[in-house]
Amino acid sequence: MQRSSITVNNREYQWPQRPVVVVCVDGCEPDYISQAIEAGAAPFLGGLNGRGTCLTADCVVPSFTNPNNLSIVTGSPPSVHGICGNYFWDAEAGAEVMMNDAKYLRTGTILAAFAAAGAKVAVVTAKDKLRSLLGHKLSGICFSSEKANEATVPANGIDNVVSLVGMPVPSVYSAALSEFVFAAGVKLMARERPDIMYLSTTDYVQHKAAPGTPHANDFYAMMDRYLSLLDAAGATIVVTADHGMNAKTDAFGRPNIVYLQDLLDGWFGKDVARVILPITDPYVVHHGALGSFATVYLADDHIADAAKRISEIAGVELVLSRKDACARFELPPDRVGDLVIVSERLTVLGSSVSRHDLSGLEVPLRSHGGVSEQRVPLIANRPAPSLPAGHRWRNFDAFDLALNHLR
Amino acid sequence: MQRSSITVNNREYQWPQRPVVVVCVDGCEPDYISQAIEAGAAPFLGGLNGRGTCLTADCVVPSFTNPNNLSIVTGSPPSVHGICGNYFWDAEAGAEVMMNDAKYLRTGTILAAFAAAGAKVAVVTAKDKLRSLLGHKLSGICFSSEKANEATVPANGIDNVVSLVGMPVPSVYSAALSEFVFAAGVKLMARERPDIMYLSTTDYVQHKAAPGTPHANDFYAMMDRYLSLLDAAGATIVVTADHGMNAKTDAFGRPNIVYLQDLLDGWFGKDVARVILPITDPYVVHHGALGSFATVYLADDHIADAAKRISEIAGVELVLSRKDACARFELPPDRVGDLVIVSERLTVLGSSVSRHDLSGLEVPLRSHGGVSEQRVPLIANRPAPSLPAGHRWRNFDAFDLALNHLR
Repeated sequence: MQRSSITVNNREYQWPQRPVVVVCVDGCEPDYISQAIEAGAAPFLGGLNGRGTCLTADCVVPSFTNPNNLSIVTGSPPSVHGICGNYFWDAEAGAEVMMNDAKYLRTGTILAAFAAAGAKVAVVTAKDKLRSLLGHKLSGICFSSEKANEATVPANGIDNVVSLVGMPVPSVYSAALSEFVFAAGVKLMARERPDIMYLSTTDYVQHKAAPGTPHANDFYAMMDRYLSLLDAAGATIVVTADHGMNAKTDAFGRPNIVYLQDLLDGWFGKDVARVILPITDPYVVHHGALGSFATVYLADDHIADAAKRISEIAGVELVLSRKDACARFELPPDRVGDLVIVSERLTVLGSSVSRHDLSGLEVPLRSHGGVSEQRVPLIANRPAPSLPAGHRWRNFDAFDLALNHLR
Repeated sequence: MQRSSITVNNREYQWPQRPVVVVCVDGCEPDYISQAIEAGAAPFLGGLNGRGTCLTADCVVPSFTNPNNLSIVTGSPPSVHGICGNYFWDAEAGAEVMMNDAKYLRTGTILAAFAAAGAKVAVVTAKDKLRSLLGHKLSGICFSSEKANEATVPANGIDNVVSLVGMPVPSVYSAALSEFVFAAGVKLMARERPDIMYLSTTDYVQHKAAPGTPHANDFYAMMDRYLSLLDAAGATIVVTADHGMNAKTDAFGRPNIVYLQDLLDGWFGKDVARVILPITDPYVVHHGALGSFATVYLADDHIADAAKRISEIAGVELVLSRKDACARFELPPDRVGDLVIVSERLTVLGSSVSRHDLSGLEVPLRSHGGVSEQRVPLIANRPAPSLPAGHRWRNFDAFDLALNHLR
């Protein structure tokens, strides 16, 4: 017998009455959707105005992919789940490492909890870097577009994905990598009818194309078609994003970059300060590992001086101590440096000039990571007639909205 | 004999060695230009990358048209020139009035000072609301596109403008109103060869079209053609903006509005608080008088309570006392209310629901007024080889850049 609700990370979720699909659209600044609707490219999403729900929510800062995907699937901030970047300084190991292994996860997911309670759960993510985190302790289907052809029943709960989806495995740098996620979701809904499905795309298009421009509208037209099929299949759909996206250039299209490691080396000498850019991941061609959030480790006696100097740099919006940053952004203190730096909307933070390869930036840099990319859509295909008043919605309320508030 | 330099509002400007044209592109978020260049719509501006100058500057907050145009032509902030909105509460007169009469201007302009010193000066503005302010005590040419057919030699220093320009007088709600400004500038450069010319457009297009979308690119392609003609005529050109522009909607395209007067009336009763929206002007069809800046007058004993309540509203970014706001934004205290409220990037501030006509909003609201619209381009067609390091550039440094720094 199914339970009527389950509790995960101190939040209660009602058992789904129909299939629930939560979609995390990577880099989905709200204007991508409104511009696509305005251009006539997203008739399904446009048609939800009236019958559905549209909130604007705050994502987690740093406004990066891994911290926010994990927040969404755990219903909690990084102070609870531990994933506060794609990349971090592992003080215990004494090394800079990717934070994409499930060993770094400090709590269970809503997905695993529902599966353990008897729900049929499916997860599809564009890039494989998220798969092991999202699939942590999950009894169900979990695979990436990137490695769809390698999926096996023991490892992924499914095989023959490519023939199920009917699309070849796309390049990791393509809009098709995200289309594969949606196409797989529609096929899985038809064949498996999961109780709960989580779909997570990649922001390859959003890093390149501004809201309302042809490539962006093409992407949202594609998404709109698949969402309409999931809607027609009777699913409850909630669409949110891991973070927004902004231009990070001057009017000529040249990136506005503050190279923090070079500055710190100049002030204090080599090997005194260590700049960590948590946007860093194996796929940096489209953003050059440049985002609007950095954290710095340095000796105690330099912290106050560094904070003062960094806060005076044009383009820097916030300089916070570890303590203040962890309180404000709900981050795990043992995975954050002595200082946290956030740059303003049009500026990104780099480490050293020599460490960033900008040759892959074929179009003006668009990126994220800061407070300026914190506003994201939280949309549903059903009404929510009695939402709490004055609530600050977060993207990690997506399952709460889907399971507890939609009619 | 011409002087080698003149001093206006405590800043020194070198006498121009060739015609200088300063262009204020209304609502020109930097990304409008970079996206137009990227789309191939602005080859002249794109070609300046390498031979010209591109800075990103801060405009005056409130990021509205009149305060910033007057800052640019006086080289000073509103605390000096007095124009801190399009609209204000005239405490002396006991009335809400437009701030577009020259009697409100508290200092002279760079334009008038050069003209008085013997320079030939020409000013063309799109909307007539700016004409009397920009033309204050100016011996020279000064007219608006809007009333180009009414220009007379005694009033405007020129007549027969329509036949000179070769375009009919455009609608006040059109891209052509701005095109008329550029077309007039090119004709004036050929016939009059002014030493100093100031061109100021209107943001009709920017309120409707996002950067990189077809209507926006069409506008910048038009601008690019006229700028290339001014460049070919040998003019020094500096392009800046009065303010940026952002989407102010949710993902469905519905405006995010905080109605401050209704909230204050609910908390304190009718006629206790007076909300002033300094974006208000006679031409509100395209923005519904909704921007991201408001000021509130209210009795002393309610100020602290109101500040606390307003700061808790979702979408509010800053609540400042008159004193703090005037210090931070360099505003004249006698023309600012007891509180200043700034909303975040995707949210606007209204007064009462009943006072805003949103029927003219045919496309998702885009607007300005806040800190989120403070970053603007500051571009020139010549190099500036020795700019001061670490300088915070302002849009009202446009004449300083043009006359003192370009080679």
